[in-house]
Amino acid sequence: MTSSSPVEAVGVDVGATKIAAVRLTADGTVLARARCATPRRTVDELVDAVAGLVARVRGEPVAVVGVGLPGMVDAGTGALAFAPGLEFARAPLGELIADSVGLPVVTDNDANAAAWAEYRIGAGRGQDHLVLVTLGTGLGCGVVVAGRLLHGSHGFAAEASHLIVEPRGPLCECGNRGCWGVAASGAAIARLGRQAAAVRPAGPLARLIGRGSPDAGEAVTEAARSGDDQALEILHRVGTLTGVGLAALANLFDPAVVVVGGGPVSAGELLLAPARTAFAARLYAPGDRPPVPVLTARFANDAGAIGAALLALDRAR
Amino acid sequence: MTSSSPVEAVGVDVGATKIAAVRLTADGTVLARARCATPRRTVDELVDAVAGLVARVRGEPVAVVGVGLPGMVDAGTGALAFAPGLEFARAPLGELIADSVGLPVVTDNDANAAAWAEYRIGAGRGQDHLVLVTLGTGLGCGVVVAGRLLHGSHGFAAEASHLIVEPRGPLCECGNRGCWGVAASGAAIARLGRQAAAVRPAGPLARLIGRGSPDAGEAVTEAARSGDDQALEILHRVGTLTGVGLAALANLFDPAVVVVGGGPVSAGELLLAPARTAFAARLYAPGDRPPVPVLTARFANDAGAIGAALLALDRAR
Repeated sequence: MTSSSPVEAVGVDVGATKIAAVRLTADGTVLARARCATPRRTVDELVDAVAGLVARVRGEPVAVVGVGLPGMVDAGTGALAFAPGLEFARAPLGELIADSVGLPVVTDNDANAAAWAEYRIGAGRGQDHLVLVTLGTGLGCGVVVAGRLLHGSHGFAAEASHLIVEPRGPLCECGNRGCWGVAASGAAIARLGRQAAAVRPAGPLARLIGRGSPDAGEAVTEAARSGDDQALEILHRVGTLTGVGLAALANLFDPAVVVVGGGPVSAGELLLAPARTAFAARLYAPGDRPPVPVLTARFANDAGAIGAALLALDRAR
Repeated sequence: MTSSSPVEAVGVDVGATKIAAVRLTADGTVLARARCATPRRTVDELVDAVAGLVARVRGEPVAVVGVGLPGMVDAGTGALAFAPGLEFARAPLGELIADSVGLPVVTDNDANAAAWAEYRIGAGRGQDHLVLVTLGTGLGCGVVVAGRLLHGSHGFAAEASHLIVEPRGPLCECGNRGCWGVAASGAAIARLGRQAAAVRPAGPLARLIGRGSPDAGEAVTEAARSGDDQALEILHRVGTLTGVGLAALANLFDPAVVVVGGGPVSAGELLLAPARTAFAARLYAPGDRPPVPVLTARFANDAGAIGAALLALDRAR
């Protein structure tokens, strides 16, 4: 590696169902991508799968690897302490992957990685106080405080899924009703879409979902774009509940910007306009503070992998 | 001031009804105390009252003044941006007080100051990640992250009063139901005490409140200590709702300890035991993380003034 070579990293985003990897330059250019299904039986298979993806995208200038993990990551050891759906993987994954690929490995929570991507080169670039939520199977959250990721005393900070936003909402696996992660996520849009389709089996939404082409969540967005009232109502409801939770976070973290990512933001203003309205209505003393913009994430599916790569590069400096 | 003199500060806690001041040494010893009612008409009267208290407690070694304020304090200018009940005081109070007393003045939110007191020399000493809540007229919150107070982008962080903890709870002035500051505070205990007294006019609680000796909140604690079931139920309910909110904060901030202060903690375990139970039940993945102790604050009524003095001393270094 010559002094003129750009420093590069591989970033890996381990999800409960799939793993994505990118090779990234320090200025944020993606040079290569790869993905595979997540092995869900043993730690060895998981490590092998990550190592295989790293091998596929890495090149000579790659000096470090960052890995985003879908759960609580111990900031001291880099180990996965808990992740729903990956209970078998409570292990020092960072060390195991490092041994396998022969490069230094940095691990962090996947939403923390996505927040870092938006802070460093994305929608929140230059804003030292930032909150990111990403709507997917659940709801991920990452927070930047004074230019640093908020990790807390163990690395488990920014767990926002169980904030109560919908008092009479559906039951969460935690035993409570109205948890944010159940009320506002890609899974929530899909669930509400299937419910609406069952209520009106001949409606546009039911036809789209029945055809089975996109998943139920994507069907809702597609139907909403065509003006379907059932789908519009779903996006309005989930957007509103997204905004309710974001206001709670803004009251606690006082961010300069809030960034919303994940698949559902492809619905654009159909989701974000109600989110902004609810956000403004719930923000404390809105007349006595500067407005807090609610922005769409720059990075969609790649956010976790890109952020993990940036974290690895930044910590190697 | 000789080199052997201890460095001292005056700390002032401006509340909506009263102002308290202490003269404090760097090791946390209170050398003098004074208090007065809060003038609630003009900024000049408020500044004069603070300056008068400073004059009463200050001595030669006092080099700085810290002031805790009951609302949103602009971290850049030190001005009070908003405080319920002190709307007239939206002003650069730090500058005005400094001009009046002739010493450098540091301002911060009162609960931030209390959190700083508990972090530096109180129940959370040596814990770099700490959450404090203080139960009073409302609910105050301050957060220490990596050994620094969390201020956010403007100084408005750690506003926790409007977290939803009691879906069908009483209406908050913000327009929502179940806000934490309404459900869990000294005022909540007093309100529930008066309601219980009205339900059972010949009961022990009604007799205590009717006698008018302590305020309704203190009457609840007194009756609970004598085993009165109405009073015990009130403390159990408010304690439980305190714990629900604390768990939300612990999920977000991952503190090493949580500290609860304010007048109601004089009820001891009658309030804190149900808080700990609810906290443990709501903490995310409790089996996969170290336990988070819920501690009683070391400082009661003086916490804000002592913390403001410490903030002034620490920033002067």
